[in-house]
Amino acid sequence: MEFSLTKEEEQDALESYIQFLKQPSISATGEGIMETADLLNSLFQQAGIKTAVRKTDGHPIVTGEYNTGAARTILVYNHYDVQPVDPLNEWRHGPFSADIANGRVYARGAADNKGTLIARLLGFKKFLEEKAAGLNFKFLVEGEEEIGSPHLERFIRDNATTLHADAVIMEGGGLDAKGRPQIILGVKGLLYLQLDISIGERDLHSSNAVITENAAWKLLNVLSTIKGSDGHVLVPGFYDDVKPLREEYLSMVDTYDIDPSDLERSLGVTRLTKKTRKEVALALFNEPSCNIDGLASGYSGTGAKTIVPAKAFAKLDFRLVPDQDPQKILQLLRNHLAKVGFEGEIKVLSSEFPVRSPSNTALVTALKNSAAKIYGKQSCLIPNSPGTQPMSLFTHVLGIGEAVSAIGAGGPLSAVHAPNENVEIDLFYKAILHSAQFFYEYALANPGPSPLEK
Amino acid sequence: MEFSLTKEEEQDALESYIQFLKQPSISATGEGIMETADLLNSLFQQAGIKTAVRKTDGHPIVTGEYNTGAARTILVYNHYDVQPVDPLNEWRHGPFSADIANGRVYARGAADNKGTLIARLLGFKKFLEEKAAGLNFKFLVEGEEEIGSPHLERFIRDNATTLHADAVIMEGGGLDAKGRPQIILGVKGLLYLQLDISIGERDLHSSNAVITENAAWKLLNVLSTIKGSDGHVLVPGFYDDVKPLREEYLSMVDTYDIDPSDLERSLGVTRLTKKTRKEVALALFNEPSCNIDGLASGYSGTGAKTIVPAKAFAKLDFRLVPDQDPQKILQLLRNHLAKVGFEGEIKVLSSEFPVRSPSNTALVTALKNSAAKIYGKQSCLIPNSPGTQPMSLFTHVLGIGEAVSAIGAGGPLSAVHAPNENVEIDLFYKAILHSAQFFYEYALANPGPSPLEK
Repeated sequence: MEFSLTKEEEQDALESYIQFLKQPSISATGEGIMETADLLNSLFQQAGIKTAVRKTDGHPIVTGEYNTGAARTILVYNHYDVQPVDPLNEWRHGPFSADIANGRVYARGAADNKGTLIARLLGFKKFLEEKAAGLNFKFLVEGEEEIGSPHLERFIRDNATTLHADAVIMEGGGLDAKGRPQIILGVKGLLYLQLDISIGERDLHSSNAVITENAAWKLLNVLSTIKGSDGHVLVPGFYDDVKPLREEYLSMVDTYDIDPSDLERSLGVTRLTKKTRKEVALALFNEPSCNIDGLASGYSGTGAKTIVPAKAFAKLDFRLVPDQDPQKILQLLRNHLAKVGFEGEIKVLSSEFPVRSPSNTALVTALKNSAAKIYGKQSCLIPNSPGTQPMSLFTHVLGIGEAVSAIGAGGPLSAVHAPNENVEIDLFYKAILHSAQFFYEYALANPGPSPLEK
Repeated sequence: MEFSLTKEEEQDALESYIQFLKQPSISATGEGIMETADLLNSLFQQAGIKTAVRKTDGHPIVTGEYNTGAARTILVYNHYDVQPVDPLNEWRHGPFSADIANGRVYARGAADNKGTLIARLLGFKKFLEEKAAGLNFKFLVEGEEEIGSPHLERFIRDNATTLHADAVIMEGGGLDAKGRPQIILGVKGLLYLQLDISIGERDLHSSNAVITENAAWKLLNVLSTIKGSDGHVLVPGFYDDVKPLREEYLSMVDTYDIDPSDLERSLGVTRLTKKTRKEVALALFNEPSCNIDGLASGYSGTGAKTIVPAKAFAKLDFRLVPDQDPQKILQLLRNHLAKVGFEGEIKVLSSEFPVRSPSNTALVTALKNSAAKIYGKQSCLIPNSPGTQPMSLFTHVLGIGEAVSAIGAGGPLSAVHAPNENVEIDLFYKAILHSAQFFYEYALANPGPSPLEK
């Protein structure tokens, strides 16, 4: 069984896509958020999904449920909000015009994440038409992903029972540079915190530097005990729970297609700290890091001002890998800071567990098989993203055994978060078919008692 | 011979003082600068001084000369500009009303430096009336001291011949907490620079932290090679030219009246890095320092932003003591930075030699003797200010053998640079008499051929 679209179906799909893209939904400003949630709600209803627009303390979350009484349930996570459009003057098409040019649709959200969302919804409808196999669906579409999902955890904790599922398909995971569908099996974890130091009430004339402390030096001296100049994190115990990559993930490292020189160019840096392709891949997938995101103290205007700064702060993020636990890392850091005599304040701004799902599962097999049928290519499996998504809300909070990012409509030229975001129309159609095919393969692999098959 | 003022002379002096204070002269904004320079010019003319308002690339410098053909010439340095008046709502009197209350005159500049300037001018007139002794005078009054004297060095270099003198009386050096006139024999030197580091064109997503450098960490690693966490400067050779205090200065340390606990309170810091009175005094007078004035990199807004910062900078000042040479220190630092692999930019923002004048001179003797006569107190001698003034322009650029800060109209309650700046009227009169008496004593100690004595 292989899914396909007629010309009429393609035309209808494109119209739905364009209609959805024309509706702005900028979470940073709130523009069009309510309208988009309502529009999505009605699209879900038209597809036969039991749907609701759920209030949060921020933008609403649209949930959907389609229960056939099947043994297995898949949770589909997406977001309906988009990034702001600045710089507007760099757009060749209106960001909400959804113009078509060169076989592509141009719009903010074309790839991230409206294209993927609509493709999954249309794939779901296609799957249902076949009445081929039983699978229960839950949909969770938030409106704050682009501003850091500040209300998602609360919502998931409050609705843990009704959101439970056997596996989660997250957003992300489009095509790689060779056009291969990516299957990203997890994310790095994150511990983000701010260290604040104060040596007194106000900045002092710097002639006092010989008799007073200096907040900037104190901060700097503390930071240099956290990480060595070789990049190694010096907090005792930091690496204790880092698991070496298992064989199944190591083979993904071996085939991961990345060129260090290309990467230097695209990142715009003088040099990478890792030399070979393999070192880069291993670092991206399984090396935890301690990064300074920001640092400020004293005078930062032009010219000279002679002061001893009274205050200083640093923003730090630790990217974590399995099985590092952000709460345990925080405790190790607190112990370390106490030991080196840190006298400031520690503010925790964000905390996420790392996730790495198994690759030998029915879910991943269904993703690979469906990708091969639709794209005629092998999938590109990745142990985990080098970045962080709120994936652990599903795996660690809801206790779902596997979560992957896959079936994205975007590709390497999609200019996500940038001007002229776009998706190739053919790839949008393929994302619909990939979604339908995946649901089908996954349902077949997990037949169980299904009303559809009766 | 002891100078005194009649009631009428006091009244006239007070009126001149008030008239001058009512004229704003804020160098930071330029408000009233030209008017003040012109007013000063006419006050000098009325006193019989050959005067000129000299253009610079900034605010004008008022110069004056009174040549009697005497063997010795004294150069009197002051400034006619004042600090801004913010916060205005904390003033109990208009900052340019020059109100009198509780025996004090309240105005911006009452002490720093208009009070001292007018007292010296009136002291000069008083001295001339006595026709007692011969002394040549040069006056240099700049209008940019409160913004760092950006055009003074150029002016002094361009007018080196006409500005030459045997000794310099700088501004500063008012009364200490016990009402003793201070004689400050020098200043610390200064090397102020900015270190800039860039690792690429733009900030990167912090998932790249495992494969790229980080401008903030690079800067921090470099800074930690410049100074140890114990406060010791690690640049090889930095301390080589630091001279131990000679006996004459050590005795000043022994009698320097400062209480570490009081100092903690007045600076508003948790603790000092020096414990005893003597340690504090020694550090203030003869310990060079490396101070971070400012530090900035990456994201400094509220909340979390996950980036690898592409740029970072630090502003650093080194306070120097005799015989450290800022240009030599700069070279040592450049060598050190090259050795530790610093790959950024070094911008020099300011450079001043340290100065410490001898204490066993006719100048200092005249200052002490005149102070004893007018105030009935011993002077408080200080080897050098813990801060920096452009004193080395006189000693190192003009090659004048001694320069001191003394005969200031202000006292410990004068609230210099703060709201409600003020001077006790009696102390203003004393500053006039101290000036006249000092000129007299100094002229006598250096009689030479004087037309006045003919």
